[in-house]
Amino acid sequence: MNNKVKVLAISGSIRKRSYNKALLMSIKDHRQDIDMEIFDLENIPMYNEDIEANMPISVKIFKQKIKEADLVLIATPEYNYSISGVLKNALDWASRPKNDNSFSLKPVGIMGVSPGSLGTSRAQYHLRQIGVGLNMRILNRPEIMIAGAKDKFNDEDRLVDEKSIKLIDDLINEMIKMID
Amino acid sequence: MNNKVKVLAISGSIRKRSYNKALLMSIKDHRQDIDMEIFDLENIPMYNEDIEANMPISVKIFKQKIKEADLVLIATPEYNYSISGVLKNALDWASRPKNDNSFSLKPVGIMGVSPGSLGTSRAQYHLRQIGVGLNMRILNRPEIMIAGAKDKFNDEDRLVDEKSIKLIDDLINEMIKMID
Amino acid sequence: MNNKVKVLAISGSIRKRSYNKALLMSIKDHRQDIDMEIFDLENIPMYNEDIEANMPISVKIFKQKIKEADLVLIATPEYNYSISGVLKNALDWASRPKNDNSFSLKPVGIMGVSPGSLGTSRAQYHLRQIGVGLNMRILNRPEIMIAGAKDKFNDEDRLVDEKSIKLIDDLINEMIKMID
Amino acid sequence: MNNKVKVLAISGSIRKRSYNKALLMSIKDHRQDIDMEIFDLENIPMYNEDIEANMPISVKIFKQKIKEADLVLIATPEYNYSISGVLKNALDWASRPKNDNSFSLKPVGIMGVSPGSLGTSRAQYHLRQIGVGLNMRILNRPEIMIAGAKDKFNDEDRLVDEKSIKLIDDLINEMIKMID
Repeated sequence: MNNKVKVLAISGSIRKRSYNKALLMSIKDHRQDIDMEIFDLENIPMYNEDIEANMPISVKIFKQKIKEADLVLIATPEYNYSISGVLKNALDWASRPKNDNSFSLKPVGIMGVSPGSLGTSRAQYHLRQIGVGLNMRILNRPEIMIAGAKDKFNDEDRLVDEKSIKLIDDLINEMIKMID
Repeated sequence: MNNKVKVLAISGSIRKRSYNKALLMSIKDHRQDIDMEIFDLENIPMYNEDIEANMPISVKIFKQKIKEADLVLIATPEYNYSISGVLKNALDWASRPKNDNSFSLKPVGIMGVSPGSLGTSRAQYHLRQIGVGLNMRILNRPEIMIAGAKDKFNDEDRLVDEKSIKLIDDLINEMIKMID
Repeated sequence: MNNKVKVLAISGSIRKRSYNKALLMSIKDHRQDIDMEIFDLENIPMYNEDIEANMPISVKIFKQKIKEADLVLIATPEYNYSISGVLKNALDWASRPKNDNSFSLKPVGIMGVSPGSLGTSRAQYHLRQIGVGLNMRILNRPEIMIAGAKDKFNDEDRLVDEKSIKLIDDLINEMIKMID
Repeated sequence: MNNKVKVLAISGSIRKRSYNKALLMSIKDHRQDIDMEIFDLENIPMYNEDIEANMPISVKIFKQKIKEADLVLIATPEYNYSISGVLKNALDWASRPKNDNSFSLKPVGIMGVSPGSLGTSRAQYHLRQIGVGLNMRILNRPEIMIAGAKDKFNDEDRLVDEKSIKLIDDLINEMIKMID
């Protein structure tokens, strides 16, 4: 039997060597005490209300995994001063159909890595507003904005920045306390 | 020879009877003085940097059409307090690859229709911030936020709200003055 | 002895017959079960770090009242697409000096009335972001955005819109559950 | 006779040795080709609609100076994830009374300095939204966000960071082209 906290982790970038994927894999390695699954958004199609009644199987699975998780972690890149379209599209599906919002009251931890100096902050404040719409429970702090990505990961794409690792540990520990 | 102003129009919703599509079709009918093409985003795939070098043909066409347009109109629904993932994803593609942002300095008119009472205002302020990132030229006014969609369109999906029609005319006329 | 829940209420407008003040007075009349004080911001001076060490007495009292309250309610007008400067200035004082943020982890309910159709929504999303900075605990819902103020209050400046009254009751009842 | 471009500069902080004031003074020293006045907000009282009809003389002067300026520069600190209350309050006054918005169509350059790593970016995106409400003309770029203030100014409170100086020159030169 597995009594570990169940965590679903989502990267807003679907490219293979995405820093945000690497961030989630680093957390998975580092936190053996939690049961963490990284869900890849590449099979989630474009949201279209016309096909909502015949919801694609990939979306059904995504929604089910969110519901079954105790916690959700979202690692978002920043594209054009907001979250990626890929991530927003997945969140749009998760909120549908009406009255079946998979994120309702779910504890959600947000974070992001960027090569630049703002560390996805613009994306994260948009995500927080979207999270109000989705009725997510998002902590105010710690905020995880990892700037200057190149120097924070090693050659095996693992996070090696001690300060960021500590912040992420704090975030996850705080989130575990939020589980009902 | 066609000397009409060339307008590319994009709906953030891809469902067939989307209010935002209906809005754009209404403008196309109403403004015979402009050469307006409505571009459907349904064939734009998810953005993935790994396939950027072999850019999908649908994306190449999309980028080309933006560049050739004198003006771009974007009609956005509001999903979860922001623009749709479908729209954001298309904008993400349009900004790539680095140094080939198709929207750079393009005059862009933004508008939106919603069934609710806020008329996509939350989506539009996010879109304005995204537009700073994309270096779009977006007018401050008029703002086109059409709330209570059901009463503003007729049975043939055409906008019949005189106040909104007037505002849209004002917007397009102001935008025409922005063309270099 | 008074075992009632202690509520501090703040209006972002200081004019005498402000709709937002009227909203707070209506709540005070309506909710005799809570011990509610309406604090007027008119004596809070402009924030200036140079006078922080000799903090004005009005600011000291304001900070003390926030700390002693079980809950804080903020009713904000919308000026120029954000909260009023008067309100922001008071929040700036409340956050100071460093390491003495009076709002830290305080349950805060936000609401707003406007004559227009958006009901202070733009102001409230800015306030939510400010609330992340101040580490306030703000519920996602219900959201209280009272548009078309003129028809929602009677001649004695009391809220008479049943739907709004119900939403506010829901908000306060949810907030009471948040008290540690 | 003075044919220099007339610039009004406003700091969102009123403390004596504010980094944002220092930034404006550095620009004034550096750009002898423009006629730049730094206006101090310390005498602008709290906005109150009740006294609007008898507008305080300091507000009248402020509004007049904005109108007479060819360009306005705003240097904002970031307090609690937004612009300062002091600055927002001054902008609220400038927008009043109805139909006498002093900023209407005015070219406005925005910038900010902060000790932290985000360089007032959160404040500036709020300011951009406020600027839509005020119908300011704000360029998308360059964006001036000066992080790590301590290392960017010398002992005489003058900006010595070459990269920032260059960006500000670019901004002002672009703004000069906007003058009608």
